[in-house]
Amino acid sequence: MQPSTIERGFAVEEFENRTRLAQALMAKQGLAGMLLTSEAELRYFSGFQTLFWQSPTRPWFLFIPDSGKPIAIIPEIGAALMRQSWLDDIRTWSAPAPQDDGISLLHELLSPLAKSKARIGLPKGHETSLRMPLGDWEKLVSDLTGLEIVDATAIVQSLRMVKSAAEIEKLSHICAIGSATFAEVPVFANVGQPLEETFRAFKREALTQGADDAPYLVGSSGPGGYIDVISPPGRRPLQTGDVLMMDTGCAWDGYFCDFDRNWAIGQADDESRRAYDVLWRATEAGLAAARPGNTCRDLFQAMSAVITEMDSSGGDIGRLGHGLGMQLTEQPSHAAFDQTVLKENMVLTLEPSLSYGDGLMMVHEENIVVRANGAELLTVRAAAELPII
Amino acid sequence: MQPSTIERGFAVEEFENRTRLAQALMAKQGLAGMLLTSEAELRYFSGFQTLFWQSPTRPWFLFIPDSGKPIAIIPEIGAALMRQSWLDDIRTWSAPAPQDDGISLLHELLSPLAKSKARIGLPKGHETSLRMPLGDWEKLVSDLTGLEIVDATAIVQSLRMVKSAAEIEKLSHICAIGSATFAEVPVFANVGQPLEETFRAFKREALTQGADDAPYLVGSSGPGGYIDVISPPGRRPLQTGDVLMMDTGCAWDGYFCDFDRNWAIGQADDESRRAYDVLWRATEAGLAAARPGNTCRDLFQAMSAVITEMDSSGGDIGRLGHGLGMQLTEQPSHAAFDQTVLKENMVLTLEPSLSYGDGLMMVHEENIVVRANGAELLTVRAAAELPII
Repeated sequence: MQPSTIERGFAVEEFENRTRLAQALMAKQGLAGMLLTSEAELRYFSGFQTLFWQSPTRPWFLFIPDSGKPIAIIPEIGAALMRQSWLDDIRTWSAPAPQDDGISLLHELLSPLAKSKARIGLPKGHETSLRMPLGDWEKLVSDLTGLEIVDATAIVQSLRMVKSAAEIEKLSHICAIGSATFAEVPVFANVGQPLEETFRAFKREALTQGADDAPYLVGSSGPGGYIDVISPPGRRPLQTGDVLMMDTGCAWDGYFCDFDRNWAIGQADDESRRAYDVLWRATEAGLAAARPGNTCRDLFQAMSAVITEMDSSGGDIGRLGHGLGMQLTEQPSHAAFDQTVLKENMVLTLEPSLSYGDGLMMVHEENIVVRANGAELLTVRAAAELPII
Repeated sequence: MQPSTIERGFAVEEFENRTRLAQALMAKQGLAGMLLTSEAELRYFSGFQTLFWQSPTRPWFLFIPDSGKPIAIIPEIGAALMRQSWLDDIRTWSAPAPQDDGISLLHELLSPLAKSKARIGLPKGHETSLRMPLGDWEKLVSDLTGLEIVDATAIVQSLRMVKSAAEIEKLSHICAIGSATFAEVPVFANVGQPLEETFRAFKREALTQGADDAPYLVGSSGPGGYIDVISPPGRRPLQTGDVLMMDTGCAWDGYFCDFDRNWAIGQADDESRRAYDVLWRATEAGLAAARPGNTCRDLFQAMSAVITEMDSSGGDIGRLGHGLGMQLTEQPSHAAFDQTVLKENMVLTLEPSLSYGDGLMMVHEENIVVRANGAELLTVRAAAELPII
């Protein structure tokens, strides 16, 4: 088990910093406030952490004013937990209440701003969604004539992309747990084992290694390679000649690792070995390119140049890695369209992939933090050659 | 381990039935189609099952036309998996593409309907949310003048509330796994064990018992009782005199159990014993009331009448149970506001709760299927008296 003397949660200063930085960006856009509705957004600014978000029943709201602490408007069932946070202003209602699930409380908060024709922000761009009934939102907006609502996606995403030292400590810890778990796969995976059992054994091992959970585990195993990278496991047993891939998001204190590993079962054919080698070297190119000042596009092109040795299309995953933190995938995207400039303390995945043979694909993934002088691996680097179980 | 000879997935007829029933309800509302964006909605009509939804990056769309099979508009990364479904018309784009994440494909599909001033449905009511960037939705709607978009929440929820035999088989299986896991708690939970370790042991046991995962596990342990029911576990060790509660949503093949159990550690005080007894009897009252023809309100009142013996407020969880299926919580709600009539083959939780002592609370939960002659337990009924570990 990975030692876990790291504190859970964050010091209050962490939330004060996040809020102050958000308010500085809000001021530049002339925002009198910012309304947030999603799990990661609420947790980022309040520290409110619960799995209860898995229930779709109740909406939750956080409002960041132009100065001072955030204001929570939440179901009463969350009040006891939210009172342990750094917030002072916690407004609750007895939810569910389909006729008024927080809407009159939101109205009360926002109507003075509407009267003064203020502008507020709401994340409504790429990678966001409004976690509340759309009908309630439409009603709220139509009742608040005068309020100008603009997209605040960039404010939240630009802050969340760059991690604090305390966040990096958590991410490093869960990446170490993920690495220790993958190291045990050759011990518990065997020919004849149904893939769903391999997956269960992986999750048990991740928990044993100290993960709070392994909520994301996808993968495939097939003769000479696999055709899909997001499937749940079936009952087909591992067979000699398979290539097995498992891709996991393990979590610790609300922070994720996200990486995969590949193995050949019993023996590997030349094509699989070559695909693996190309991806391993593409990752090396990514590691070299992941330094402050380069862009995500640079990172994409560095990896893509190597992938082209074997696959001119570069597969169709859509990107070759992404940000990592409170969610399995975060901004930015390592893609030709993303000109985000890499900064120190960004935590990223490098995830080159390629298509080969008869409809097969292979993916490879590592997690890094961008330091002043370049990439620092958070994961234990995959073997340079396709390992055989 | 619970034997699992049950088939994963569903026969095509299951999806044909769901689609035909939806189309009949759509016809009553004069809908030319229905647009869906969430995980459970897409899975319900297509069978498309993946944990990849945990990544917020890519939107996914399913359109149910007024006749014929659903049409999928999805990121290319999901194409191989979706092609294994019963759908024929699968339209993909290389996502992420922040400038056009499926929007032009949606526009192409919907613009003929907009030209003919057709009406389509979109779930935008209680317990729903639009899983796509709000900005993209606003753009799409403003480009499709003529298209009338109405709330289709009731269509999807009324169908999903009543389970098929194949769904009940899966739900029964995961409830049996949950029960077998809870039965082991006295074996692995010990005085001095940090609560986070008790939780890890629970999840390992659930996997050993055959769960695909235990994505939801919340609970508390505190002297004489607990004050919160949605917290993640901390490092405080279990202590003699604690009341421990764990509430789990384990999953098998995409279907959930959702129930909890309480234990006293070492010894139980009179107040906790009494609270437990009241909740146990409230559940009995719920079991007796859970028959076709009664309403959710009846079920609420039957349980509430018993809870009142000890707590006149009935706590503030907001309801005393809910539907259960592809999500941890589904419609309906056992609450005074919900007049949904219970039907045969609804799968429900009975979840009475109360406040007592100095800010303490207790919750109790069982899972049932409503049969023609009344409630059938899917969970192994909790002990009649507060068990002591």
